[in-house]
Amino acid sequence: MIEKIVARAQSNWTKAEGPHHHIVLSSRLRLARNLKKIPMPAFQNETDGFTVLEKVKNAAENLGYRGQEKLYFYRLNEIPALERQILLEKHLISPEHCEEGGNKGLLINGDEAISIMINEEDHLRLQVFSPGLQLEEAWQIADQLDDALESELEYAFHSRTGYLTACPTNVGTGLRASVMVHVPALVLTQQAGRVFSSLGQLGFTARGLYGEGTEAIGDLYQISNQITLGQTELEIIQNLTTLALQIVAKEEKTRKWLLQECPFQIKDRVGRAFGVLQNAAILNSQEALNCLSDVRMGVDLGLLKEELRKLNLCELLVLAQPAFIQRYTGRTMAAQERDGVRAELFAKKFR
Amino acid sequence: MIEKIVARAQSNWTKAEGPHHHIVLSSRLRLARNLKKIPMPAFQNETDGFTVLEKVKNAAENLGYRGQEKLYFYRLNEIPALERQILLEKHLISPEHCEEGGNKGLLINGDEAISIMINEEDHLRLQVFSPGLQLEEAWQIADQLDDALESELEYAFHSRTGYLTACPTNVGTGLRASVMVHVPALVLTQQAGRVFSSLGQLGFTARGLYGEGTEAIGDLYQISNQITLGQTELEIIQNLTTLALQIVAKEEKTRKWLLQECPFQIKDRVGRAFGVLQNAAILNSQEALNCLSDVRMGVDLGLLKEELRKLNLCELLVLAQPAFIQRYTGRTMAAQERDGVRAELFAKKFR
Repeated sequence: MIEKIVARAQSNWTKAEGPHHHIVLSSRLRLARNLKKIPMPAFQNETDGFTVLEKVKNAAENLGYRGQEKLYFYRLNEIPALERQILLEKHLISPEHCEEGGNKGLLINGDEAISIMINEEDHLRLQVFSPGLQLEEAWQIADQLDDALESELEYAFHSRTGYLTACPTNVGTGLRASVMVHVPALVLTQQAGRVFSSLGQLGFTARGLYGEGTEAIGDLYQISNQITLGQTELEIIQNLTTLALQIVAKEEKTRKWLLQECPFQIKDRVGRAFGVLQNAAILNSQEALNCLSDVRMGVDLGLLKEELRKLNLCELLVLAQPAFIQRYTGRTMAAQERDGVRAELFAKKFR
Repeated sequence: MIEKIVARAQSNWTKAEGPHHHIVLSSRLRLARNLKKIPMPAFQNETDGFTVLEKVKNAAENLGYRGQEKLYFYRLNEIPALERQILLEKHLISPEHCEEGGNKGLLINGDEAISIMINEEDHLRLQVFSPGLQLEEAWQIADQLDDALESELEYAFHSRTGYLTACPTNVGTGLRASVMVHVPALVLTQQAGRVFSSLGQLGFTARGLYGEGTEAIGDLYQISNQITLGQTELEIIQNLTTLALQIVAKEEKTRKWLLQECPFQIKDRVGRAFGVLQNAAILNSQEALNCLSDVRMGVDLGLLKEELRKLNLCELLVLAQPAFIQRYTGRTMAAQERDGVRAELFAKKFR
């Protein structure tokens, strides 16, 4: 399964479908869980780590026997570094889980809607991905999966605080819900900074494309809850859904305003981005993402050729990434060569 | 005739023909002449200026009767400012001759190969334009025209110093020979500055697209002789031809070197320029010229679609100019609106 996953740019979350997918690219739920009486990854010895891997692997197999969706098990150190990097680029694992060392494992289903990191910061990090704004739907899947696993594994759970986690910010529900939003108009009008920095007061946080500490390139932001305690899972999800809808409305309104107030500037920006993707011979991933962002908005606003709608720009986001480009080309390359290959690839796509 | 001239971007010098026209866009000869016993334009009263206009006009008519090419006479103050500006953009008159005031006149033939400015700095400034590197051919035309006019007019001439002119730098032959060269590779490799600043020692000077004090945009330089005294006309022309051939060789060599040493960078530059011309919605004339320059080199190096060869990039240089854009659109426009119209126009041309 992993060979297929790393060979394709598409993933469950990149499908251009689901409510409001023109602005909310994808929804993701993550549950942090730990097994009873085994030290958490930061304090594990070799045996502890191995025990967790084995227990989770067996549990997943049992789920499979009971007719649940098949999850494929991998030890991360058996996956070559370049392919681990692709899993990261596809958001299926975290940057920490991509690094060498430790008894790291992965369970993943065939369409990449489910990915469980084993021995990341917690023993288990269940992730469910959906395209568009579908947090409740993702929650149904995550909840069922969690229940099924809990019937096989003994989770560390405290009746008052809830699920115990490595980091206190995850204690309680252990739930991190997030949406990836594409807000070029908010960025262009310099509203993004203000809007997203105010989220903290509401218990949410905004980060860049690859999580904490990464820059918001391509006008993409991940919005997630900061609070996991004192709210039910459904409350968290509903609050984030409400917030996402507000962002959708604000982005839509701003796009309309831009089209009305500075139509030439918008057409110019979108046109030039398209021109770069179609004609550049050197294209780094950051510029590719920024141009894809403008083109995506342009397509949505009807400013570019209608045929471009057929292009899945979420997939192209993945395609633009360094490791994916190398896997696609079939050889490791220095950044300079990658920029040439990427340019060629995009020129083909946009011709 | 003037209505036709200001309505078309083509001119004799914009034809993509003549020796070495891929680098030497055009050749131009200019002869400065003054009539005997009439004050030069800077010291003229109204009557003097009018006398010069009438004398030259009559002389030109007599030339026509004798079977020479017909020259059309205009008083500059009868030509609307916008159309004067187009004559300037087409290099048919000088910036000074474009300005209001004085008894300025113009004689021009049907294909714009000949343009005579009357009461510019001198009483007469005969100009002959040719596409490519054809200074000797231009000189044949200029010399015949000069002789024919001299048979009708009494030139101020001194047996020792030659033709008298308003500015001492023109005394003697009164000849300014110039070539317009397109040297994107020399500019890109930062050789242009060095090459062109050293021309002074050889008795030549390099200026931008619109003469003295104008910036060298679009990688275009006008090279002309500084010395008009102590050399025959043919010596001046031959020296400039030799110099132009050296510049052609240097530019060609540098282009080859660039293609070999940094093919991706060149393709990228050329591709992006094409992308801008094809897709921008706001395009000022300077950016248009710079992009045209890169595209012109790209076409020449076979880096762009073969069909682009059909586009006459010299004509597009004229088309990009502010006054021409307004005449073309049929209304006066502020710079911002022009940039939109220009972008639309170029998008059509390059689609």
